[in-house]
Amino acid sequence: TKIETPEQFEQTKKTILENKIDALVVIGGDDSNTNAGLLAEYFKKEGTSVSVIGVPKTIDGDLKNEMIETSFGFDTATKIYAELVGNICRDVNSARKYWHFVRLMGRSASHITLEVGFKTQSNIILIGEEVLAKNMTLSQVVDSIVGVVVKRSEAKKNFGVVLVPEGLIEFVPEMKVLIAALNDVLAENEPTLRSMANLDEKKNFVYAKLTPQLAALMRSLPYGISSQLMLDRDPHGNVQVSQIETEKLLIDMVKARLSELKKEGKFQGKFSAITHFFGYEGRCGAPSNFDANYCYALGYNAAVLALNGLTGYLSSVRKLIKKPEQWECGGVPLTMMMNIERRKGKEKPVIQKALVNLSGAPFKVLVKNRDNWAMTESYLFPGPIQYFGPSVITDMTTKTLQYEQEKKK
Amino acid sequence: TKIETPEQFEQTKKTILENKIDALVVIGGDDSNTNAGLLAEYFKKEGTSVSVIGVPKTIDGDLKNEMIETSFGFDTATKIYAELVGNICRDVNSARKYWHFVRLMGRSASHITLEVGFKTQSNIILIGEEVLAKNMTLSQVVDSIVGVVVKRSEAKKNFGVVLVPEGLIEFVPEMKVLIAALNDVLAENEPTLRSMANLDEKKNFVYAKLTPQLAALMRSLPYGISSQLMLDRDPHGNVQVSQIETEKLLIDMVKARLSELKKEGKFQGKFSAITHFFGYEGRCGAPSNFDANYCYALGYNAAVLALNGLTGYLSSVRKLIKKPEQWECGGVPLTMMMNIERRKGKEKPVIQKALVNLSGAPFKVLVKNRDNWAMTESYLFPGPIQYFGPSVITDMTTKTLQYEQEKKK
Repeated sequence: TKIETPEQFEQTKKTILENKIDALVVIGGDDSNTNAGLLAEYFKKEGTSVSVIGVPKTIDGDLKNEMIETSFGFDTATKIYAELVGNICRDVNSARKYWHFVRLMGRSASHITLEVGFKTQSNIILIGEEVLAKNMTLSQVVDSIVGVVVKRSEAKKNFGVVLVPEGLIEFVPEMKVLIAALNDVLAENEPTLRSMANLDEKKNFVYAKLTPQLAALMRSLPYGISSQLMLDRDPHGNVQVSQIETEKLLIDMVKARLSELKKEGKFQGKFSAITHFFGYEGRCGAPSNFDANYCYALGYNAAVLALNGLTGYLSSVRKLIKKPEQWECGGVPLTMMMNIERRKGKEKPVIQKALVNLSGAPFKVLVKNRDNWAMTESYLFPGPIQYFGPSVITDMTTKTLQYEQEKKK
Repeated sequence: TKIETPEQFEQTKKTILENKIDALVVIGGDDSNTNAGLLAEYFKKEGTSVSVIGVPKTIDGDLKNEMIETSFGFDTATKIYAELVGNICRDVNSARKYWHFVRLMGRSASHITLEVGFKTQSNIILIGEEVLAKNMTLSQVVDSIVGVVVKRSEAKKNFGVVLVPEGLIEFVPEMKVLIAALNDVLAENEPTLRSMANLDEKKNFVYAKLTPQLAALMRSLPYGISSQLMLDRDPHGNVQVSQIETEKLLIDMVKARLSELKKEGKFQGKFSAITHFFGYEGRCGAPSNFDANYCYALGYNAAVLALNGLTGYLSSVRKLIKKPEQWECGGVPLTMMMNIERRKGKEKPVIQKALVNLSGAPFKVLVKNRDNWAMTESYLFPGPIQYFGPSVITDMTTKTLQYEQEKKK
């Protein structure tokens, strides 16, 4: 829940005082830590001496900046997804007859997909942030996949693995516009829509409210996808991307394009596709050694910050690619990380999500390697998380962190 | 491929002689080892001295009998699926707002689902063989799920985990009849159906060929499911159960039943469901220590059998719940394991699939515990396969094998 109203702030203060709480440690992502920052300011203003400290937690990896190298959970989740995707890579390379389209959690940001891409060297690794930066249409994204499918089929390789970030659909500019318009139409007409008995009636109502271009785009989508776009929004009014089966949308469109190419004699191969969505199974896994150590350090450090009377700080542990003994602890003022954003028509201070930086070292590694990975079977098979045994197997953290930190040396 | 025609047998003999092959080791499940048995008999009859030895390999766990305790792959696959399902159990118990329906590979047999059930103690564990034995309709299966959903919701638990064997749909007697009739209609009218442009046309053609009862049943299914039933058959003429999203069918039917109960005032809870299908990610995983040891023993033993001039034997390694040093090696004549079955209208010798035995010790353990698991959160979280560390963590094999072998003592 976002803490916004004066009543909510007062209620928080009341609870703190009644329970004689000295310190409040908020564990979460950008939204939770925005709350932490606002609460700290409020308590200071009210003269309440409680100390509020944030801890960066999200598997999505989108809470990071100069002082926060990563959030806990990202290492464990990407290791679990990479185990599964690696197994699928081994399967495609053995069966040699299927294309597997794997959608990966991560909300807006494509960090998880990028990291799982590094860990498995899958054939196609889509990055939402790149689609946005290049202003690509859905057809262009599909064409980029079709290009690889056709080229591999010419080498008698009618198989491969495609990684799709769940936020992709929101990054396609035309879809972004459609989703934003839909968010408004659904919010403004909630009672009317709620009274309608069936989905087709609701859709027709919505089509009439959209611009003709957007209505045409929505009508052009497969029935299942346009239905998923109509689903309930999350408490922040955003579409729940994990409910949209983007991988099926892409497969449908790839199939259609390939059958055109077949008619033109430009594709002689076969295309059978299988879908996966990995999300929930990576959120609650047993933590990797890295995450266990990192959490311990973050928590210990949060307590030290609070005991020293600091408030409005995010617990910060850095130099994470070194051994835990060499990690450096500190705190970052939450206000330093905040920007003003327009949300629901009002200006609000929020911690910005860190998306994949297209000028950053990790993305450059992808660009350098992806043409090779597309055409070959350079698959890596990371296997399951290990807790015992050689430290090179048990304690290594993410490639993303490694590439990001190495460039700083 | 099934070796059946005289030409295929001759071709095999030719290849063996041309390449001066002394021994042929066939690694696979019931179909591959049926081939091994038939080839051994054929070579003996022809006076070819090649030795044919089979090795039991299938993740499905359905190649077993008095002399073959398990097939390799079953241990690894069930450990991978159990890691994922365990993580989901932890997630539902934390989020407390979703029902997760997990379909698991295993073709006809429910061994994988049963074993993953033991390893995770999920709330509902459906066993296809039980549905068949009790002659349950699809509605009765749905009612059994609805019963638990309603009871848990009365305890404010609008969440849980349901395990669905992918073969379930074939075990529901009415669906079994429908699928068998469909197999025939599709096979007999292949050219006509192939010439039809769209699916609805094909469906209408098929409805007219089915009995009115079966056509009505098929029409009553959700559109997606009836479409999946129309998909291409495998080379043996069987429906490919891994393509049928039984978990979605069940969710649709559970939802419909719950909304009736809501109107009658008999259900006040919420029901939001999320689906998973785990199959490919468990077939090509890095082998568990048990499977690595078992494979090594099976292969070594196969070579010993061949070197001793035996042919038509399946490599057998027993006492598998003891330490590898105490395992007992031997061979089982493949003919001993064969039965005559009618396939495509002809009598053929085949190795029978071992389905879940409802009088066996493992199923009895399920029956004894499932009412408790349904209402509580007795979840277990097995975590990822470990290769190093304490042997109680790294070397334990399946619960199924343990329960089966313990009763023999």
